[in-house]
Amino acid sequence: MTEILAQYLATRARTEHLCAPLQVEDYIPQAVEFTSPPKWHLAHSSWFFETMILRKHLPGYRVFDDTYQFLFNSYYNNIGEQAARNQRGMITRPGVAEVYKYRKYIDSSISKLLSGTYDDEVRELLILGINHEQQHQELLLTDLKYTLALNPTFPVYDPGINLVNDENSTNGWLNISEGIHDIGHQSDGFCFDHESARHRVFLHEFEISKSLITNGEYIEFIADGGYQEFHHWLDDGWSWINRENINNPLYWHKTDGNWFNFTLAGLQAVNANAILSHVSWYEAAAYASWKGCRLPTEFEWEAASDKLNWGKRWEWTGSAYLPYPGFKITEGAVGEYNGKFMINQMVLRGSSVATAAGHSRKTYRNFFYPHSQWQFTGIRLAR
Amino acid sequence: MTEILAQYLATRARTEHLCAPLQVEDYIPQAVEFTSPPKWHLAHSSWFFETMILRKHLPGYRVFDDTYQFLFNSYYNNIGEQAARNQRGMITRPGVAEVYKYRKYIDSSISKLLSGTYDDEVRELLILGINHEQQHQELLLTDLKYTLALNPTFPVYDPGINLVNDENSTNGWLNISEGIHDIGHQSDGFCFDHESARHRVFLHEFEISKSLITNGEYIEFIADGGYQEFHHWLDDGWSWINRENINNPLYWHKTDGNWFNFTLAGLQAVNANAILSHVSWYEAAAYASWKGCRLPTEFEWEAASDKLNWGKRWEWTGSAYLPYPGFKITEGAVGEYNGKFMINQMVLRGSSVATAAGHSRKTYRNFFYPHSQWQFTGIRLAR
Amino acid sequence: MTEILAQYLATRARTEHLCAPLQVEDYIPQAVEFTSPPKWHLAHSSWFFETMILRKHLPGYRVFDDTYQFLFNSYYNNIGEQAARNQRGMITRPGVAEVYKYRKYIDSSISKLLSGTYDDEVRELLILGINHEQQHQELLLTDLKYTLALNPTFPVYDPGINLVNDENSTNGWLNISEGIHDIGHQSDGFCFDHESARHRVFLHEFEISKSLITNGEYIEFIADGGYQEFHHWLDDGWSWINRENINNPLYWHKTDGNWFNFTLAGLQAVNANAILSHVSWYEAAAYASWKGCRLPTEFEWEAASDKLNWGKRWEWTGSAYLPYPGFKITEGAVGEYNGKFMINQMVLRGSSVATAAGHSRKTYRNFFYPHSQWQFTGIRLAR
Amino acid sequence: MTEILAQYLATRARTEHLCAPLQVEDYIPQAVEFTSPPKWHLAHSSWFFETMILRKHLPGYRVFDDTYQFLFNSYYNNIGEQAARNQRGMITRPGVAEVYKYRKYIDSSISKLLSGTYDDEVRELLILGINHEQQHQELLLTDLKYTLALNPTFPVYDPGINLVNDENSTNGWLNISEGIHDIGHQSDGFCFDHESARHRVFLHEFEISKSLITNGEYIEFIADGGYQEFHHWLDDGWSWINRENINNPLYWHKTDGNWFNFTLAGLQAVNANAILSHVSWYEAAAYASWKGCRLPTEFEWEAASDKLNWGKRWEWTGSAYLPYPGFKITEGAVGEYNGKFMINQMVLRGSSVATAAGHSRKTYRNFFYPHSQWQFTGIRLAR
Repeated sequence: MTEILAQYLATRARTEHLCAPLQVEDYIPQAVEFTSPPKWHLAHSSWFFETMILRKHLPGYRVFDDTYQFLFNSYYNNIGEQAARNQRGMITRPGVAEVYKYRKYIDSSISKLLSGTYDDEVRELLILGINHEQQHQELLLTDLKYTLALNPTFPVYDPGINLVNDENSTNGWLNISEGIHDIGHQSDGFCFDHESARHRVFLHEFEISKSLITNGEYIEFIADGGYQEFHHWLDDGWSWINRENINNPLYWHKTDGNWFNFTLAGLQAVNANAILSHVSWYEAAAYASWKGCRLPTEFEWEAASDKLNWGKRWEWTGSAYLPYPGFKITEGAVGEYNGKFMINQMVLRGSSVATAAGHSRKTYRNFFYPHSQWQFTGIRLAR
Repeated sequence: MTEILAQYLATRARTEHLCAPLQVEDYIPQAVEFTSPPKWHLAHSSWFFETMILRKHLPGYRVFDDTYQFLFNSYYNNIGEQAARNQRGMITRPGVAEVYKYRKYIDSSISKLLSGTYDDEVRELLILGINHEQQHQELLLTDLKYTLALNPTFPVYDPGINLVNDENSTNGWLNISEGIHDIGHQSDGFCFDHESARHRVFLHEFEISKSLITNGEYIEFIADGGYQEFHHWLDDGWSWINRENINNPLYWHKTDGNWFNFTLAGLQAVNANAILSHVSWYEAAAYASWKGCRLPTEFEWEAASDKLNWGKRWEWTGSAYLPYPGFKITEGAVGEYNGKFMINQMVLRGSSVATAAGHSRKTYRNFFYPHSQWQFTGIRLAR
Repeated sequence: MTEILAQYLATRARTEHLCAPLQVEDYIPQAVEFTSPPKWHLAHSSWFFETMILRKHLPGYRVFDDTYQFLFNSYYNNIGEQAARNQRGMITRPGVAEVYKYRKYIDSSISKLLSGTYDDEVRELLILGINHEQQHQELLLTDLKYTLALNPTFPVYDPGINLVNDENSTNGWLNISEGIHDIGHQSDGFCFDHESARHRVFLHEFEISKSLITNGEYIEFIADGGYQEFHHWLDDGWSWINRENINNPLYWHKTDGNWFNFTLAGLQAVNANAILSHVSWYEAAAYASWKGCRLPTEFEWEAASDKLNWGKRWEWTGSAYLPYPGFKITEGAVGEYNGKFMINQMVLRGSSVATAAGHSRKTYRNFFYPHSQWQFTGIRLAR
Repeated sequence: MTEILAQYLATRARTEHLCAPLQVEDYIPQAVEFTSPPKWHLAHSSWFFETMILRKHLPGYRVFDDTYQFLFNSYYNNIGEQAARNQRGMITRPGVAEVYKYRKYIDSSISKLLSGTYDDEVRELLILGINHEQQHQELLLTDLKYTLALNPTFPVYDPGINLVNDENSTNGWLNISEGIHDIGHQSDGFCFDHESARHRVFLHEFEISKSLITNGEYIEFIADGGYQEFHHWLDDGWSWINRENINNPLYWHKTDGNWFNFTLAGLQAVNANAILSHVSWYEAAAYASWKGCRLPTEFEWEAASDKLNWGKRWEWTGSAYLPYPGFKITEGAVGEYNGKFMINQMVLRGSSVATAAGHSRKTYRNFFYPHSQWQFTGIRLAR
């Protein structure tokens, strides 16, 4: 078996492994427009391989089901119309078993394709598809957590899982002196299109924290009236917390003066020493302001990254998600992967406890809206 | 086995029979706030027996699960807080199998209760619970249809079912002369509280149609520009069809000049001779206006009912849902059954192809908002 | 001068008299979709005479300004398109002075028309137009009050005006025995189309209060937790007070434990002996329920009206606004006056302190949505 | 008279000169939350001088009216609560004449203050207040245009004014070679806080257009189906044009195949040679994509600015509005001027035909949300 096929199959297996604790019922609901049901993630990641690779590159390939092109297209206008994004929870048929059949069918087709000769385009699309599925693995977990949290009984996904209790292994500040830095991807390995072109950025001297903010540190902010004091907040953030009645990170509940948070292992006491998770950019920026600091830019983060411990939380940066100099949108559907989202979102760097092993790298750019809380997001300060 | 127990068990069995064609996935989604998932209907109708009867009247009864009182309370404020009405689709746990266990537990508990001596209050509550479950049987079907219709693949619930193809067996007009009529329930049999007090109503002479409007007749209204001509519509109805872009009965689709409708047996051509279904009160009133007629009041309907064929569609009347003279709200949770809904809704009379056998009667009052289309509703004219 | 011309001119003069305390600025704002600016009322009531009478019946009549037909049409689809209902506050031109010129032009044209011979249709339309303008006089005052109340400085319309301090002149209960009553208009005088056809209604025996609820009585309801106790409320009303955070009649403010209300004379202490005003139907029904009573139906009210003192507040009834037996929509624009609003609204009977003298009568039917609070509405109980 | 007083008085006079064509009615309406009535601009710019300077720095100063602190505070939380931002159109009192009195009172107080000795803080706040009022002059015009455009009669503000007919005086591309550039303000003159700290930015080689896009060029984009082709649009922009039904720049209307636009001089034919105005960032970015170009970053713009003709339109850049390295929020109310808006908005550079003379400079940073169209915004391409 070739290395790429092994990698493909391992990725596919991990997705299904993540679903092992689920009952059929859990595969169905879509809580809000920005989350998707587990079943949809299973099908869509398969649809990606079918649509981007098998249809064009496997001679004689027969699509598994004609309706899937419409049902499981996320947002690729190049491919055609899509089922309504906010109605994914209504698609009870095909059922879960049928979607697993679809996955097997795709897997055997990909295996067949890779058993013959194939060109570089196929190889590149395959690696893209693997990375795409890894992204959906993380979304599957975070979306699932969001849905389970809406059940007043706080159901347990896996009593043994622990994604929010990691602690910092170091602390203090790292100083980076001013100068021109090369930013963006350059090695031979895979990267997403938006990590290029590699280009030069001038950075002034700065300091960046070696550790991420802990729950305990954030509780001090709350206890100091952080959510009631407009000075710390950007105007849109202040409107947001007041309109949505936000008083704490997502999944936190205060009972008899103590903080609890809903986790994939059920409701647990908040561990003060653990790294904070599930804060929006607005909250990250407000906390930084309260501390007399700021968030690092994505360029500062990348310049310092070799000397940082990173990987427990997606780290909000002070950079808006915009194209690098020389960025080009790829032709066709693949070009809709990143470029069309380059407005209104903020860049996150690093990776999280829910990210697939080997998926991220120091040039990796994640991006979410500034009010998003449902990812495993954290805060690293700069000054 | 007593007759009442037999009736109870038959009703319970029918509910589960209606679910026989479902996959586990189908039990979960809640399409909109006014519909509920099949699983919720299964659990809530059991919760009703547990809450209204078993907790108080079966000595030594142990509740099946403490969380259910909260999870499956629909709107009974007397019982306590309820899970958010628009989040019923998020409750993946308890799973479907667990809910069926709950049903069995309730059934054996009720059987046990009825095997001993029990007073009239229990008997009356039991009959109420049976009627309550029959109402939820109809909602289960209509809610399910609403959800399945949102799947772009038009899935089939049961290829053999046919709920929208009945035709009229008679036609012409029935004349009723003026006079005082007794309205409301009087026999010894069960009725809901809002069917009483029996009282007198003076009716002027009127004519009422012996048949319901057919699809073919309604297509004439559409073809005549009925949805584009403000003269036929009440102002709120005109706003509604324009705001919601309503151009036909719910579930209808026009393809290449022909009308199709989504049914529980899948997408089918509209049968011109069959009785029209799935129209709102606004549409019913607009159609009547176009024909130079009007809808009968609920009193006219009841006065004529002995001479009418009724039972294929819930028939919109021109009467608002209001209390009869002498109507009294019952003490306690049971009092929340009907009385608190007596505003903003219109009365429907008769019964539909989806109504449980024996459930309705000529004094029965059903009620929905004037924009509701998802029940098996039809039009009978008066003049 | 003929009597009808005198009546016309007196009505026109009263409208302008009501505007005497206004500054130009006050003529402009539209607070919400259901209110209109004073300038709009001035122009629309003139538009009515121009459109319904002068254009057709005064030979050689030249319209004052072509754009007015569009700008000042309220909701008459028969006349043509209308300026957006919720954008009336944006129409700064024509200015106030120009609208007064328009009024003078209409007045002199009507005078000219009435100085010649004219047929009965003109006479009837003129009386309709006078009654129409009287309705807009009341709306002008209630809309203005709504707008002024949004100014945090509580501006004074007229320090000498007192519309909410009247007290009851009698009390106790009136008993009406059962029987058939004639309902609807029958004299030769003017009535709106929806007051006919006169018809018979059977009423069971009932009692109706001779007095309206006072502020003091309503304060007891509030003090007893009336707005926090679901038992008193219809379900839609309970949703409404919780969604909109309603805790008292419109315009009431509690300061240091005392109730104040905004009036057209500015902010004043609530007078406990005065008749309650500015409650919605939901509040009226909840209060009645709390007292163990109910609201009278519009038929009961009319049957008892000769023995009642009425006229300080529009009195909410328990009747939905629906057509009488035999009601016919008039051909043409005039037919849009009432009939198309016969859904979702509740009937009010009587008249208010803001109603033009002689405008109302015992068969008069007013109607508003059950959440409307901004009219001078009150509560009379029945049982 | 000192130079600063002369400057102050000239600015104040220009504001009032802009209002000369208005009728009292025009001063009142607020069309949408993001616009304000002329009267509010007149009062708020005076409130700024009163609150930031006179209250603290003119001994014995008596505030004109206590309620104004609340009524005319825009968004300064440091000063206290504010009247609801979306209800500015309801504040009919104080009237227009009273607000002009307020202006005179402020002017004489400022004159008095400047006739004595005052420190540098006063001088700096005065210059800030002058620049603040200049910004509100532009908003007054653009907000007024927005309101007048909602009147179906297209009223004329000033028949002689012509703000959208300027043409480019040059064209072609300017090449800037790569290197480190100093960005931000450094001279002794006034600048806003967000123009500093002056810092270094590395720029790769780029080309920037010497001209702005014309109406004729943009009409080609429309005619080529630009608004129907998803490829050109960022995802949020594509959602925006579809949700809001945007098919052209703001104020454009197509009649019989020809384009007209509403201007402050009334409805006029679109001049193909004139510079395009009233496009959102989404539209600017889509146009650039269609041309195979992009928008310049704010740093590129500033680096090239000495060689560009700029000043007819605010030019959308590809830069998000974020703090410069070393940016510090000022203590107190003045610190709320810019910093708290540094999220979700895009930077515009240059100035427009509606900008006060001498107000802008090459380091000036303007900012609006990417969907904003109501400013005099245009497109300059880069590549």
